[in-house]
Amino acid sequence: MASEETSMSRLLKLAQEFNCFYLKGLQKGNCRPFVVAGQQVGLVRPDVMVELNSYPEVFIIHSDSVMLNPAFRDYKERTINVEKVLKDCKLRGTFITLKGWRDESFEVRSVYSEEALLKMDRCATCLFGICNYGVDINGYVNHPEKGLCIWLQRRSKTKQTWPGRWDNMVGGGLSVGFSVLETAYKEAEEEASVTPEMMKTVRSGGCVSFFYESERGLFPNTEFIFDLELPLDFIPKNNDGEVETFELLPAQEALERVLSSDFKTTSCPVVVDFLIRHGFITPDNEPNFPEVVELLHVPLQSVYRNFQMNLKNGDLH
Amino acid sequence: MASEETSMSRLLKLAQEFNCFYLKGLQKGNCRPFVVAGQQVGLVRPDVMVELNSYPEVFIIHSDSVMLNPAFRDYKERTINVEKVLKDCKLRGTFITLKGWRDESFEVRSVYSEEALLKMDRCATCLFGICNYGVDINGYVNHPEKGLCIWLQRRSKTKQTWPGRWDNMVGGGLSVGFSVLETAYKEAEEEASVTPEMMKTVRSGGCVSFFYESERGLFPNTEFIFDLELPLDFIPKNNDGEVETFELLPAQEALERVLSSDFKTTSCPVVVDFLIRHGFITPDNEPNFPEVVELLHVPLQSVYRNFQMNLKNGDLH
Repeated sequence: MASEETSMSRLLKLAQEFNCFYLKGLQKGNCRPFVVAGQQVGLVRPDVMVELNSYPEVFIIHSDSVMLNPAFRDYKERTINVEKVLKDCKLRGTFITLKGWRDESFEVRSVYSEEALLKMDRCATCLFGICNYGVDINGYVNHPEKGLCIWLQRRSKTKQTWPGRWDNMVGGGLSVGFSVLETAYKEAEEEASVTPEMMKTVRSGGCVSFFYESERGLFPNTEFIFDLELPLDFIPKNNDGEVETFELLPAQEALERVLSSDFKTTSCPVVVDFLIRHGFITPDNEPNFPEVVELLHVPLQSVYRNFQMNLKNGDLH
Repeated sequence: MASEETSMSRLLKLAQEFNCFYLKGLQKGNCRPFVVAGQQVGLVRPDVMVELNSYPEVFIIHSDSVMLNPAFRDYKERTINVEKVLKDCKLRGTFITLKGWRDESFEVRSVYSEEALLKMDRCATCLFGICNYGVDINGYVNHPEKGLCIWLQRRSKTKQTWPGRWDNMVGGGLSVGFSVLETAYKEAEEEASVTPEMMKTVRSGGCVSFFYESERGLFPNTEFIFDLELPLDFIPKNNDGEVETFELLPAQEALERVLSSDFKTTSCPVVVDFLIRHGFITPDNEPNFPEVVELLHVPLQSVYRNFQMNLKNGDLH
């Protein structure tokens, strides 16, 4: 269970890195709530606001919010109009993130309601700071000699985001019409050839929440986490061409990889949380243990709910 | 794994209850940082400030902080002077919490430093909103018929705080001079006769952080959590007279008890976190799953660190 003190002190830095927006950007107060149908669904940065200002028939920039034009009456009208703007921005090269257009829709909801308000391409949600929900599976082995070992994947070099970086064994966005557990089954099969039969022993382990920012945009992410103990002789095999290779690493080596610059930053919280829940990172070997744990669960829901309350109280537009 | 929808929707209410100060009190902005030797160590409520105002030689009330007189040069001088005030308040019946004087010292530190600045009786820390650190052990059994079962204790009716309420199997404050794991061993033996031999398989599982408030004061608590799988035939036995009885409950019954008013409010987070980490409460049976998880890990360290940064920047006294 013991681990090198030196690698441990790097954990807090890493937790601060994947929460760079939560710890620095949010405090600046220069982002504005993105409001759709009277409900806050996101947060817009000043540089994005400047560009959206060119589409006043779709986005209305108030002094303290960015509103999707309330004249759009329903899901379909909102979706069509937002897509028109995003396609135009894509053509004009306004936003880096739109180069990664995926033709994969994301349903936009407020934290308050199950009702989808509109859909947009997954690559565009970071422009509006919309909360993203995903599913991750920690595939692990209790090795007779090496102890706790974790399966990691190397992302394909052709992926739009984080090409060639190391990542969790299985991860993907929540799919419309699937429960969280069903999404886990689906992703396990697609990404790593883990059959439904093998998934029978999968266990929900909680979730991590963090708020990352990159040049592409804002990433308020919540990942639902599952743990799956795998047989010693199982080797994951990719089915969708998005994975370059898989590797089984003892816990300490997995931690070193997570702490290296070779790991997808927004997947680090999942492995760190796993190593904490499995007693590998402990209050006695990590000097900043409570702070690291807190940074794995930043209050995204309250942040957005508070904005929501301000909206209701009329403090914001 | 499935559980009644009805009991689940009560989880968010419970999480809000043990975070009543985090969600409501903190926002009011009427508490002031408690500053010792230039470092924020706590938070003082207006009603406490009024009383401390009668001891201007010890506490200096600024418009945006409450300072322990900086003329006190060291640990000893600070401790003696604060104790003098607290003993006087106890005699005069100023604060309810001081009726529970324990003759058990608490070392006061800032989140930034290991150095203790003063000590005070444990019952007084809630007057100053000082972060409390504790250790809890979830004793559990994988029962062949009943599945996951958890040992709970009923607190003695003679305890100063929460008499007669249900509680975790083992819990206690961090002891000076002991590591977190050593404290777990010590408390396990004292409270439940769990021997060091049995503790060999104990596993660190993370920590929970929450910010509760009662008429007694403020409780920013961080609990370090350990899980211990126990043999089917083991029955905990109390050694220090602080426990009335122990009971082994199947997970669903344990959850029901936690959701009842018979459970010590500030111990609920530990059981809820256990049931989440062990896959009993899941995103598919708890509609407010991410928010509940976030409320088990509120950012106490950042709250106090931000105040600290403001202190450094001269925004506060």
